[in-house]
Amino acid sequence: MAGNSFGELFRITTWGESHGGGVGVIVDGCPPRLDLTEADIQPDLDRRRPGQSKIVTPRKESDTVQILSGTFQGKTLGTPISMWVKNEDQRSEAYSEMATKYRPSHADYTYDAKYGIRNWQGGGRTSARETIGRVAAGAIAKKILRERFGVEILAYVKQVHRLIADVNPETVKFKEIESNIVRCPHTATAEKMIRLIDRTRKAGDSVGGIIEGIARGVPAGWGEPVFDRLEADLAKGMLSLPASKGFDVGSGFGGILLTGREHNDLFRIKGGKVRTLTNRSGGIQGGISNGETIYFRVAFKPVATVMHEQQTVGSDLQNTTLKGRGRHDPCVLPRAVPMVEAMTALVLLDHALRQKAQCDFA
Amino acid sequence: MAGNSFGELFRITTWGESHGGGVGVIVDGCPPRLDLTEADIQPDLDRRRPGQSKIVTPRKESDTVQILSGTFQGKTLGTPISMWVKNEDQRSEAYSEMATKYRPSHADYTYDAKYGIRNWQGGGRTSARETIGRVAAGAIAKKILRERFGVEILAYVKQVHRLIADVNPETVKFKEIESNIVRCPHTATAEKMIRLIDRTRKAGDSVGGIIEGIARGVPAGWGEPVFDRLEADLAKGMLSLPASKGFDVGSGFGGILLTGREHNDLFRIKGGKVRTLTNRSGGIQGGISNGETIYFRVAFKPVATVMHEQQTVGSDLQNTTLKGRGRHDPCVLPRAVPMVEAMTALVLLDHALRQKAQCDFA
Amino acid sequence: MAGNSFGELFRITTWGESHGGGVGVIVDGCPPRLDLTEADIQPDLDRRRPGQSKIVTPRKESDTVQILSGTFQGKTLGTPISMWVKNEDQRSEAYSEMATKYRPSHADYTYDAKYGIRNWQGGGRTSARETIGRVAAGAIAKKILRERFGVEILAYVKQVHRLIADVNPETVKFKEIESNIVRCPHTATAEKMIRLIDRTRKAGDSVGGIIEGIARGVPAGWGEPVFDRLEADLAKGMLSLPASKGFDVGSGFGGILLTGREHNDLFRIKGGKVRTLTNRSGGIQGGISNGETIYFRVAFKPVATVMHEQQTVGSDLQNTTLKGRGRHDPCVLPRAVPMVEAMTALVLLDHALRQKAQCDFA
Amino acid sequence: MAGNSFGELFRITTWGESHGGGVGVIVDGCPPRLDLTEADIQPDLDRRRPGQSKIVTPRKESDTVQILSGTFQGKTLGTPISMWVKNEDQRSEAYSEMATKYRPSHADYTYDAKYGIRNWQGGGRTSARETIGRVAAGAIAKKILRERFGVEILAYVKQVHRLIADVNPETVKFKEIESNIVRCPHTATAEKMIRLIDRTRKAGDSVGGIIEGIARGVPAGWGEPVFDRLEADLAKGMLSLPASKGFDVGSGFGGILLTGREHNDLFRIKGGKVRTLTNRSGGIQGGISNGETIYFRVAFKPVATVMHEQQTVGSDLQNTTLKGRGRHDPCVLPRAVPMVEAMTALVLLDHALRQKAQCDFA
Repeated sequence: MAGNSFGELFRITTWGESHGGGVGVIVDGCPPRLDLTEADIQPDLDRRRPGQSKIVTPRKESDTVQILSGTFQGKTLGTPISMWVKNEDQRSEAYSEMATKYRPSHADYTYDAKYGIRNWQGGGRTSARETIGRVAAGAIAKKILRERFGVEILAYVKQVHRLIADVNPETVKFKEIESNIVRCPHTATAEKMIRLIDRTRKAGDSVGGIIEGIARGVPAGWGEPVFDRLEADLAKGMLSLPASKGFDVGSGFGGILLTGREHNDLFRIKGGKVRTLTNRSGGIQGGISNGETIYFRVAFKPVATVMHEQQTVGSDLQNTTLKGRGRHDPCVLPRAVPMVEAMTALVLLDHALRQKAQCDFA
Repeated sequence: MAGNSFGELFRITTWGESHGGGVGVIVDGCPPRLDLTEADIQPDLDRRRPGQSKIVTPRKESDTVQILSGTFQGKTLGTPISMWVKNEDQRSEAYSEMATKYRPSHADYTYDAKYGIRNWQGGGRTSARETIGRVAAGAIAKKILRERFGVEILAYVKQVHRLIADVNPETVKFKEIESNIVRCPHTATAEKMIRLIDRTRKAGDSVGGIIEGIARGVPAGWGEPVFDRLEADLAKGMLSLPASKGFDVGSGFGGILLTGREHNDLFRIKGGKVRTLTNRSGGIQGGISNGETIYFRVAFKPVATVMHEQQTVGSDLQNTTLKGRGRHDPCVLPRAVPMVEAMTALVLLDHALRQKAQCDFA
Repeated sequence: MAGNSFGELFRITTWGESHGGGVGVIVDGCPPRLDLTEADIQPDLDRRRPGQSKIVTPRKESDTVQILSGTFQGKTLGTPISMWVKNEDQRSEAYSEMATKYRPSHADYTYDAKYGIRNWQGGGRTSARETIGRVAAGAIAKKILRERFGVEILAYVKQVHRLIADVNPETVKFKEIESNIVRCPHTATAEKMIRLIDRTRKAGDSVGGIIEGIARGVPAGWGEPVFDRLEADLAKGMLSLPASKGFDVGSGFGGILLTGREHNDLFRIKGGKVRTLTNRSGGIQGGISNGETIYFRVAFKPVATVMHEQQTVGSDLQNTTLKGRGRHDPCVLPRAVPMVEAMTALVLLDHALRQKAQCDFA
Repeated sequence: MAGNSFGELFRITTWGESHGGGVGVIVDGCPPRLDLTEADIQPDLDRRRPGQSKIVTPRKESDTVQILSGTFQGKTLGTPISMWVKNEDQRSEAYSEMATKYRPSHADYTYDAKYGIRNWQGGGRTSARETIGRVAAGAIAKKILRERFGVEILAYVKQVHRLIADVNPETVKFKEIESNIVRCPHTATAEKMIRLIDRTRKAGDSVGGIIEGIARGVPAGWGEPVFDRLEADLAKGMLSLPASKGFDVGSGFGGILLTGREHNDLFRIKGGKVRTLTNRSGGIQGGISNGETIYFRVAFKPVATVMHEQQTVGSDLQNTTLKGRGRHDPCVLPRAVPMVEAMTALVLLDHALRQKAQCDFA
């Protein structure tokens, strides 16, 4: 109810602020007897952590995960899995101005308005450190989807500012995505993106872009038809990520330029299966997967923290100015790729389990 | 869990198929002592119903709502409000081909894949008639927001195919929106849209577009910070509408073309209040309202039913063709305006009540 | 959240007041492809309805159920099942005093305290008519449990006032329970109970008692271990029934008189299966079914409406007196038997589906 | 859904096994700006912990709680409060037989039946250590109820085996309850109870009993009328406690011996307020508090672990015997008192917040 949980049957609850005892997540509803150790989770946290390359924040945090419960002798018990990552590189002094000034386009003011109190150190709960819990839980969800349902989840950077990469969702490979630090599988565009981000960082500015998420191998029949449509839950998952501003699926906003005759995905039998000749539906029809590849886009705004003095107000309700300090990402997209994967996996696994519960009768 | 409910504290559950006993909704959690009769609800259903103008489906259904419970002597009791609309204009014969053939880009196939059974008459549960329940519940939510919280919800057609209207979310009025049958407040563009939709209808084709939704008067502090961000719940609500393909809030996808310096909303004190000089945040920061006008866009695809023969497959897994019959909308947008309003109101009221429960202590 | 829903995966929402458009229920999450018509539901409503015998209220209501959605050609669709029973025998004048006086040990005062408004006609939402929705939904749950899981649910009157029946939960049959109007399978005690209730009715008084509920054929493994223990959910279900005051499972309150050595259920292998020599656990250990018969008791207080003048207060906060009028049950137990069955079935089916979702992997 | 969460608006999720990284709880939905440190929580954990007296298990665990998130400078933030207690005194060897044998009347067999795997060390998730999280969260709930709503929660041992204490729920004081190690406020009976438990422990046996829980100062109007009745949620909370077998409220099972005329609580105006002359309703009418003291009883069975050889079966499905080893409580009641308080507080606070959200409009 207070918004820190996601999912129904595979339900996660995250906790923690950027400064304090750490951040973590409880995963409730994980199937039993799944092989699981920290080694299944750490790689995704490493893809999310600061300091991993020259185009992300240089903060030094190892973000090492510990599983505190829910496994026994390397297997899941079916009981809640509690995972914890300690906070390490905490430089409160870098944030002291934030105690009294609201950073533009951040959540400092709205937290104060809502709660009448906020932890101003490092952004507190608004810090992107919160997403550690999601990525850790998402790693488990991805593993279950892969091993028990044959579903593969991927995400990659599709656009940075005006640089757009041409990528085929049907064929793109994890290795291609991870072959460069910006996580764009189109090498030539990736190089331009890296240069742009580096230039932006040096200018003390920031840029946004688009991440495309895909799920391959989802069988027809996942998703609920009315409010919990697959695309509705994906939209919620994506718009719950820090700095996200938009979501579209399949033909999305671009589909508006087609007429119905042009836009429809015609059905044909291929290999004895119902398939579509095109995939403008993005693998989802009426909220339910149709067996085609699911793909969608998430828009991320340029990071709000810039190294320039900007107008703002203080908690004393006086006008003032504030200049970004500390160590920040000039572009969140490279680190947001595992977050998009995580939210995708959480949505899909939840729907897989719902389908199993309600419809999977002989 | 099966996806027919929306909201937590102000929770609605819709039911019904396009052919059968009718469609309806239960509203649970409505505050007591609110003046409420059918007259508060019918106007929005009239804005949603078929046959209201020459650019929507000519089906004849009065969609008259009955309140079956939850009120007494014209006031809400705090108990569940059950509302029911009978089905009237049911021509099953128009749909007989659908018993054995899957309409392209509809949900016939996916329902069969999910449930192993479907009501093929008029699309069954996938029919847009389901949204009657949402619009009825939304009318109550809008009334509560207006009377108890001073919040105004509006929506209008922003774009049809390539026709884009210039509208100011801060000043647009309900009367302007309702001044024409396409529900676009920019009169000159509205006329072009109407001509385009009419031409499209005659050609047996369909078009899509964008609806912009807005909420004015929302105080700072509504919304939960992590998964249930205001924009995340709005995104879910909008992507749960039939034919929707995308959502963005504030600067949205367009914000990607700005850098952080350009994009940030600078805070200033105006009239003793914290305000922003621009509103690229769309009234939401860190998932929580900041007191500015909330605005967002929803993309709707062109309607899948077109009056042309198209390739498809049958439930016998054989290739075949199908030509749209029956009476369909060439463009869903004019009728989707009250749906967008309804989902917006449901999201905002739910968050208003959550805020009241958790944070509103002296 | 406002308390009108029960269950997670098989979720029901009831609505309606005793006077008004009727009462009903939405069942969400029903598996598809189940044979279902009103004929599956009406028999349980007939066991619940007024006027069925001389020991229950003589009110005349046929309580005829209509399925408004969720089925097609006699089978469930997997979509919400909406069921509706009209109100018929409404004599508002019988209740006019209740508009201004609070009936002792009823909910008139607490509803006013909570909502600041109440429908005083026939008790409004507090009327036992609300349980019609539960019984209708329970009939579906019982059918699914029987047909898809091989589970049988029964309940019977175990005690009325000081009259206690000796019944064996392992062997009692539905036919025996239904062989008399008090629904106690021990014939000799049943006759005494009937005479007692009849005498009590004539005296304008009322009596309470105990219903025992049982579930046979539940496989080991249903139930969640911590908060949603099978006995916890059963307890909640039973204490949510009007006039219920207590619940115990297995040895229950009586088990306190044994020591641990005496109380333990020793495990033995019988027929290749893990069984217990005794069943003080009531078929549940650590919140999870162990394969033995589940049995429990529910205490119902004597009905609050008695035909004698009693002290009370009015909504004007003045002392006054009130004498019960109208047509009331001298003992709720005979009509509460199908309610106990319904709540039992709702709890068990929900846990069956949860088990299927989380644990049922090859 | 997997049963490790409790509450809606003030929602807790517990995690952890008796052997492993520890046990803990996330509290989501705590109001902001409440003074809170570990010192508010530790006293209740000390009342729950092993080794506190000669009549409880001699295991040595300090059960020291750490708050990892959700507070800042000694005040709650409104964000999730994560609390953690490390496991200390872990002697796995004491449990090695449990790896292959099912303890009678424990949950070893049912966990295996459900999950196909179990952590047999110290009972894993079935260990009463799980209740640490509840007691920690309950301490916060009690504090909020006390400071913001003026509600006092108490519980005490009412009965051990055949020893019954005479206690007045209206006047009993915390200090009286805590004046002896069995937590029975009637000193003479307490002494007998202590001697009985001590004797039982020496005999390697165990005893059960009854805890009475009370809430004073609850205003009229808390509780939802249908499924989430106050007594229904209390029943669920209590039956979710390890070793509990029954619950009744107000007159409870005993009320069956009265007729309606005898049983009714007559209303009278006292001090300008609506009060009842008796309190057989236990402070709840129609599921909603009526302003009188809420009181109820919880039956706890004798502890299953006894120091005698008993018949059982192994996970190899062979008959065998097992003798209890390790350090166990001969009677859970003294340590269960803070658990009953915790569950009571969690239920009441949740309903207080719901009432605030739905009904508390000017």
